[in-house]
Amino acid sequence: MIDPVFLDSPLYRCEALEPGLGCAVSIKLETANPVRSFKGRGTEVVASALAGEGRDAVVCASAGNLGQALAWSGRRRGLDVTVVASRAAPAAKLDRIRALDARLELVDGDFDMAREHAAAIARRDGVRLVQDSLDIETCEGAATIGLELVENAPPFDAVLIALGGGALATGIGHVVKALAPGVEVICVQPAGAPAMTRSWRGRRVVTTGTTDTIADGVAARRPIPAVLDDLLLVADDAVLVEEASIVAGMRMLFERAGLVVEPSAALGVAALLEDRDRFAGRHVVTIVCGGNADVDAYRRWIGSPS
Amino acid sequence: MIDPVFLDSPLYRCEALEPGLGCAVSIKLETANPVRSFKGRGTEVVASALAGEGRDAVVCASAGNLGQALAWSGRRRGLDVTVVASRAAPAAKLDRIRALDARLELVDGDFDMAREHAAAIARRDGVRLVQDSLDIETCEGAATIGLELVENAPPFDAVLIALGGGALATGIGHVVKALAPGVEVICVQPAGAPAMTRSWRGRRVVTTGTTDTIADGVAARRPIPAVLDDLLLVADDAVLVEEASIVAGMRMLFERAGLVVEPSAALGVAALLEDRDRFAGRHVVTIVCGGNADVDAYRRWIGSPS
Repeated sequence: MIDPVFLDSPLYRCEALEPGLGCAVSIKLETANPVRSFKGRGTEVVASALAGEGRDAVVCASAGNLGQALAWSGRRRGLDVTVVASRAAPAAKLDRIRALDARLELVDGDFDMAREHAAAIARRDGVRLVQDSLDIETCEGAATIGLELVENAPPFDAVLIALGGGALATGIGHVVKALAPGVEVICVQPAGAPAMTRSWRGRRVVTTGTTDTIADGVAARRPIPAVLDDLLLVADDAVLVEEASIVAGMRMLFERAGLVVEPSAALGVAALLEDRDRFAGRHVVTIVCGGNADVDAYRRWIGSPS
Repeated sequence: MIDPVFLDSPLYRCEALEPGLGCAVSIKLETANPVRSFKGRGTEVVASALAGEGRDAVVCASAGNLGQALAWSGRRRGLDVTVVASRAAPAAKLDRIRALDARLELVDGDFDMAREHAAAIARRDGVRLVQDSLDIETCEGAATIGLELVENAPPFDAVLIALGGGALATGIGHVVKALAPGVEVICVQPAGAPAMTRSWRGRRVVTTGTTDTIADGVAARRPIPAVLDDLLLVADDAVLVEEASIVAGMRMLFERAGLVVEPSAALGVAALLEDRDRFAGRHVVTIVCGGNADVDAYRRWIGSPS
């Protein structure tokens, strides 16, 4: 069901990162595809099922990457795609959603407000609502990354996964725990958007009033209870990282690995930077999950020419 | 013979580039692997053959990318690798060659001087000399890119290939002309390093006294006669581009595609920028052949935060 352009993404040991991190690091690179994030894996599953059922429209809320992916998957199947996003989402992401022919509706508020608005549109128009992390297709899409890791990676000790709504972590986590149970599944979230991590630690849904992070792709306040239940089954740990570490991670991935990543995709390296003792000498895979950053913000994060 | 980490590299339509270029553009991305260039495909062929013959040492001259790749391929097979390079090669490339446990010998002079020194070492020590573009393995490695294009790409009209020594162009060109003869094979070289292009146009070897280009990966002065013979069989055109276009190409690949590339890998986009009429409305594949650039130089090329 998934276009091969999203599958079998690069997976390789990145030795140039290792002196700075003190452990063996492999990259699973999800940015080298038409939408520059892993989300196409899940939207392909959604859109091909909808097209098979003869449905002609779909709506989702998006922090920016799901919307691009659903627009891409829907366009090639003749689906009418509506994306609801926060007006504060990165312009680069909003521009790409429009360029992919989706209808874009902006809300004054954050991602969780966009979720409410998308649900209202779906009820009003009677169209399918895609709920990221709750709808099993979005998790199954992410799970294909897990399959590729287990099948193709040399033995590794831990996988670092950006944690937002939870689709990426539960999808990969389920596969890894089923097929390579010795591998530690570690979720990483910004300290400025800790709702799901606090929920995982407390084993009950904890919401927060605001978020404060540059990692727009994972900035959510209201965990979905069913997703938390899944996460409790598959995650070995959930850690929070500081904003400065996210920036340092982006900069390190640029300088040493030649990779342009958005803040959410640097969470894994941020976690390595913050806890070297934990990972010393181990082999860690980090999922570089997206590369859609506003260019000017990105240039500031990686610094000026010296 | 080739480690899968170098094969089936990403191949995808990059629509975000298209408004700026006026044609459909697909990227074949050769930077997402342990040596960040396509050269590993060829060095895997060389090194696995040497290991199979029980040989234990190998030497090459390199502008920087072949050396990294041969060091990588040789290290995992227990080969003693010596790389000869110009002292003026990018420090990022030289550092990586050392980090991969190769012996690095630097010459005062350019790539063609390094070639002479490597040949002398091979004669003195009786070890295998790998001659990029002349040795068939280096062309066969590049040819696997052509196979992946022909097998996996949607129909395309032209392929843009960086031209230096000629391995990439003859390798891909042979496959494309054999299996998809309607596709135009276009080589692109900097106007500041035009020896092979002039040779192709004149159908005889033309050498130049110096080179003057930021595209260090293709800066050669002395075409190899046998390689020119091959190139005359498979190339439909060879074009020269200005330095400003190479910088604009790198900047465009960074800003719109999120790709960090070295100057040689931006030659294809530079050619599109310089001749929009020629490519208008066509579907072009450009080979993004390497991503090893010095970080500070790269930051200057892509510009400062605005």
